[in-house]
Amino acid sequence: MISFTCDYSEGAHPAILQRLTETNMQQEPGYGSDSFTCSAIRRIREATGCPKADVFLLTGGTQTNAVVIDSLLQKYEGVIAVETGHVAVHEAGAIEAAGHKVLSLPQHEGKMDARELARLLEHFYADPTWPHMVIPGMVYISYPTEYGTLYTKEELRALRDVCKTYRLPLYIDGARLAYGLAAADMTLGELASLCDVFYIGGTKAGALCGEAVVFPQGNAPAHFFTLQKQHGALTAKGRLTGLQFDTLFTNGLYFQLGQHGVEAARRLKHLFAKCHIPLFIDSPTNQQFPILTAVQRQALQDKVLFEVWDERPNGTAVCRFATSWATPDEHISLLEQLLISCQTS
Amino acid sequence: MISFTCDYSEGAHPAILQRLTETNMQQEPGYGSDSFTCSAIRRIREATGCPKADVFLLTGGTQTNAVVIDSLLQKYEGVIAVETGHVAVHEAGAIEAAGHKVLSLPQHEGKMDARELARLLEHFYADPTWPHMVIPGMVYISYPTEYGTLYTKEELRALRDVCKTYRLPLYIDGARLAYGLAAADMTLGELASLCDVFYIGGTKAGALCGEAVVFPQGNAPAHFFTLQKQHGALTAKGRLTGLQFDTLFTNGLYFQLGQHGVEAARRLKHLFAKCHIPLFIDSPTNQQFPILTAVQRQALQDKVLFEVWDERPNGTAVCRFATSWATPDEHISLLEQLLISCQTS
Amino acid sequence: MISFTCDYSEGAHPAILQRLTETNMQQEPGYGSDSFTCSAIRRIREATGCPKADVFLLTGGTQTNAVVIDSLLQKYEGVIAVETGHVAVHEAGAIEAAGHKVLSLPQHEGKMDARELARLLEHFYADPTWPHMVIPGMVYISYPTEYGTLYTKEELRALRDVCKTYRLPLYIDGARLAYGLAAADMTLGELASLCDVFYIGGTKAGALCGEAVVFPQGNAPAHFFTLQKQHGALTAKGRLTGLQFDTLFTNGLYFQLGQHGVEAARRLKHLFAKCHIPLFIDSPTNQQFPILTAVQRQALQDKVLFEVWDERPNGTAVCRFATSWATPDEHISLLEQLLISCQTS
Amino acid sequence: MISFTCDYSEGAHPAILQRLTETNMQQEPGYGSDSFTCSAIRRIREATGCPKADVFLLTGGTQTNAVVIDSLLQKYEGVIAVETGHVAVHEAGAIEAAGHKVLSLPQHEGKMDARELARLLEHFYADPTWPHMVIPGMVYISYPTEYGTLYTKEELRALRDVCKTYRLPLYIDGARLAYGLAAADMTLGELASLCDVFYIGGTKAGALCGEAVVFPQGNAPAHFFTLQKQHGALTAKGRLTGLQFDTLFTNGLYFQLGQHGVEAARRLKHLFAKCHIPLFIDSPTNQQFPILTAVQRQALQDKVLFEVWDERPNGTAVCRFATSWATPDEHISLLEQLLISCQTS
Repeated sequence: MISFTCDYSEGAHPAILQRLTETNMQQEPGYGSDSFTCSAIRRIREATGCPKADVFLLTGGTQTNAVVIDSLLQKYEGVIAVETGHVAVHEAGAIEAAGHKVLSLPQHEGKMDARELARLLEHFYADPTWPHMVIPGMVYISYPTEYGTLYTKEELRALRDVCKTYRLPLYIDGARLAYGLAAADMTLGELASLCDVFYIGGTKAGALCGEAVVFPQGNAPAHFFTLQKQHGALTAKGRLTGLQFDTLFTNGLYFQLGQHGVEAARRLKHLFAKCHIPLFIDSPTNQQFPILTAVQRQALQDKVLFEVWDERPNGTAVCRFATSWATPDEHISLLEQLLISCQTS
Repeated sequence: MISFTCDYSEGAHPAILQRLTETNMQQEPGYGSDSFTCSAIRRIREATGCPKADVFLLTGGTQTNAVVIDSLLQKYEGVIAVETGHVAVHEAGAIEAAGHKVLSLPQHEGKMDARELARLLEHFYADPTWPHMVIPGMVYISYPTEYGTLYTKEELRALRDVCKTYRLPLYIDGARLAYGLAAADMTLGELASLCDVFYIGGTKAGALCGEAVVFPQGNAPAHFFTLQKQHGALTAKGRLTGLQFDTLFTNGLYFQLGQHGVEAARRLKHLFAKCHIPLFIDSPTNQQFPILTAVQRQALQDKVLFEVWDERPNGTAVCRFATSWATPDEHISLLEQLLISCQTS
Repeated sequence: MISFTCDYSEGAHPAILQRLTETNMQQEPGYGSDSFTCSAIRRIREATGCPKADVFLLTGGTQTNAVVIDSLLQKYEGVIAVETGHVAVHEAGAIEAAGHKVLSLPQHEGKMDARELARLLEHFYADPTWPHMVIPGMVYISYPTEYGTLYTKEELRALRDVCKTYRLPLYIDGARLAYGLAAADMTLGELASLCDVFYIGGTKAGALCGEAVVFPQGNAPAHFFTLQKQHGALTAKGRLTGLQFDTLFTNGLYFQLGQHGVEAARRLKHLFAKCHIPLFIDSPTNQQFPILTAVQRQALQDKVLFEVWDERPNGTAVCRFATSWATPDEHISLLEQLLISCQTS
Repeated sequence: MISFTCDYSEGAHPAILQRLTETNMQQEPGYGSDSFTCSAIRRIREATGCPKADVFLLTGGTQTNAVVIDSLLQKYEGVIAVETGHVAVHEAGAIEAAGHKVLSLPQHEGKMDARELARLLEHFYADPTWPHMVIPGMVYISYPTEYGTLYTKEELRALRDVCKTYRLPLYIDGARLAYGLAAADMTLGELASLCDVFYIGGTKAGALCGEAVVFPQGNAPAHFFTLQKQHGALTAKGRLTGLQFDTLFTNGLYFQLGQHGVEAARRLKHLFAKCHIPLFIDSPTNQQFPILTAVQRQALQDKVLFEVWDERPNGTAVCRFATSWATPDEHISLLEQLLISCQTS
């Protein structure tokens, strides 16, 4: 049985495990003051071209979103996100648990539209009852989105311009950033220059766990560390996330892992085209959304795992296949073989 | 430079790293449904003698306390702890951030006194204004305490009896449980039978990260999983904590690691006695609190790291030396050599 | 200048002020244990036909919604409301401040559709990732709605049936209940039998302040009083709200006040019809939504106050005129005169 | 039966009820934009000598403390108060419900000692682990305290100096401010100049309900109004609190009411002295704490109500007698008669 269920099915890139093993008995101070974390921060500053960046290492995506958003919002503020945004749906109310409303906008292939954002803000302040409502305090988007899609630079600039007009920080959730950068004409530095804070996802791109929050201009809110502790998001053995990001940002490993995942996704895409399987959405990154027939799903049963997103009355289903830094060629070959054989049968 | 600063200076027990490496490319489902976590839960149920126990794996101590306490308290309730309890001091207000007051009692060598607990509860309900106050909803203690001390079975039973009278769950923070069990006539099963919920600390006893929450009677509150997610305390790659606890509870490794730490602490204790160094508190576990002179501290400078808890006007200082599962004999020998040479000089 | 801006422009029904004056120096205990509150509770139990009802008096609508919803939800739960619901928009995030998400459904003239509610719940539990999401914990509706519309008994029963299936409490916000009961074939007792908790709005129906929360079956959550205190929603001089509700529920005053407001609204409606002014929505209660032309608005300027909800490109505007227990005939006559004169000019 | 139980046993000063009655049908806008509130704010600015003061009217003490403290604290901060402070004990965890810890100091006759405050802050920042702890964010005191005692100007200045050094706002809870000002050589303007924010208590000094928060230097945090709404602390009919404070600050009524309560307390004090009844604490304000014998309590039974604070093994009890703006001479005469008759019997 092979799995395309998600991009966190395997452990970590072997270089990480090897280095964890080599340095295991080295004594290090805790809570992020270890030598690995210090080095990781240096490397991330270099990779983003932001020498003054504030960098914090956390362990998971929901946790990271909760801490970053809580650190940026005043108590009377909410965060604007599209209705399919991770913070709006799949975080069990972590944002609300910290006291903040998620103000939602429609999504367009998972993306926020800058004009709709502008309109929401105009209407908000045009309504004389606005002081009775949750005040928009920041904007949350994902790169790539939940649907694997990417904002162009123009789209990001447009969002950022609206944010600037209203003095709202723009925050980019980069859980799958590795795959976004690999698929687009966008460098890490360019992304950093287009927002106020973002995170570099490790868990879905070769780490055992870990997300690196980056405030590019050294603009972290005061006492972010204490807030991280308060959220239970500060690990005693900071070496664990430190070493991982230090390794991922040595010799461009992070980018190579993203590249691997995107190339595997492209092979999937070709395969689906070859088999005349339509796509629900045209995703350039590591998540692909083929619409499979009952026969095709039958052919894969007990052999290939993947997510079924939407079963349709006509028997077809929108499915999600995720590749990753770890996807071996043989998995794709096996999938090809199964889909082709079912086609010809 | 060697360090006795804390019990989380090193990485993980080598068996953990080896197994992480061996199973690295095995594909596993996420969020705790992986085969390692399933096996770890089985082993923990066996080790505690609680076949119905609910077991959840989290990543750190503050996080674990926040989730467990939040899961057990009603909104109008608070948690009773001694004034030096970790939840009362060193968690940056994580309990309050979830809306709950920490109701504090005096500490006695880090421990809560059952009679004082009973008195607090009697007085509370005797005061006719009690519905205007935070209602006691559970009791939090640590085993061992912040001072390395241990409750006897009688003391735990006395606390538990008070708790039962008032129907308050008794929760034991076991961040250093390995060292507590190694130092006392107390099995893991006995501990499990003396409380309503506890956690088995991994981070300070040989894991990279990880704490295992155990509700011995299968008495986890409904939807604990969702609350864990809401707190950002659910890791995508559950295999990381799963594999670690599975390894720690294979062939009693966890208990051996605790034993190692306690034996190292005993060597320290003998050494301090030999050098006529008084102890601030007589701790049976892996934390030792020698009162060092200025000369002694001078002798260790630049060679041995440790925590200074309380500098006194007369030049002496209460210090904390922590041993662990990883403490090598040579570290203790070096310390001995330095302290003895300073004594004779 | 006269005002149809809202239904809380005047003070209190004179009977309230007279009785406040008469009993002013009578010494009474605090926090709701005064004789007026006791009597008010008795009268409300009678009026609702619920002899076991738990009744609590609070001071305002947002406060009441916050306390009731917080008291009924578990920490991992959210409240379902339509997108225009007061809790979803105009409470400055009070629900989220207590940690809970407002899960939103489309509105139909301000109302929730029972089939859409059922579908939301079915879809929720059909999605295997539901434990990662906010769990629906109760349903919030208003009677009348923000648009002045009313649920029929059949509609309420349908909502209640869905709620029962999923064991969700159904909560009715009755800020304008007086006007809802006056306009419909629905008794207070019938309403009480169709939900799990509701509140009787005083502020908008003749009281200086005050809302009476009713749990018809004596089904108030434990320690509601303490939670009320925690929310800052417990007044020292409970006599103030107690006396008001006691007066409102003496000789059916509350129902008469509702009747007065609805009759005034009917006069408005006839007037608008007479002047060929279309209505945005056909509201049977005390809020009317005429679509006025620029000429008509001009005619009222500096003479009549009302709310403008939506200015349209063609120069017309959806406006809101609220009548109340206090609306004098002369106000309507003046309005009539102004609208008719502008028509003929 | 007469009552000295508290200072909120009666309704409101008759001037308030008369004016409520006179202006009852005057139409006014809501949420604090009514003419009464505007006038009240003007009068309070005059009375405090702070022409730029920001003033907000709320309805109760716990509510006011919750909103003010929540508005001033960052999420990682706590409020320092003495262990007997109202926020530390009798607010059912309202401060914690908003996410903040109450950091406690010992009390000295209900007061905070400036040196102890300085020491707490020094120790806090001297501890290298402080970023793991709740950061002190403001100081809360009461004037008068829970024990009726008052800070001297020197004591307030000393507290304020410590606060300035650490840039902590000093907040004064003035639930019983009327009685404090009447008993001390302290004007309202002087008090305003000695803190960063305080509230003028109305509920316990002649209002039906109402507390006026004053930020003397116009230093209210941004969007205080929205936070007030979020806390359910914004009343639709702002005229109710507006008119009351407008009346209380017309011709010095507020100060006269305070004077009345303090004079009544002085009569009580003389009476206790005359009857050789010792005082638990020497309170200059409207709360008196006689230590009564069993015989004396027996003599008052069924005739005089008061609070019993602490029953002692020897049969005596610390009791609380509160006078107020409303205490009639006859109540004190009756008490005198009862106590003297029991003495002679």
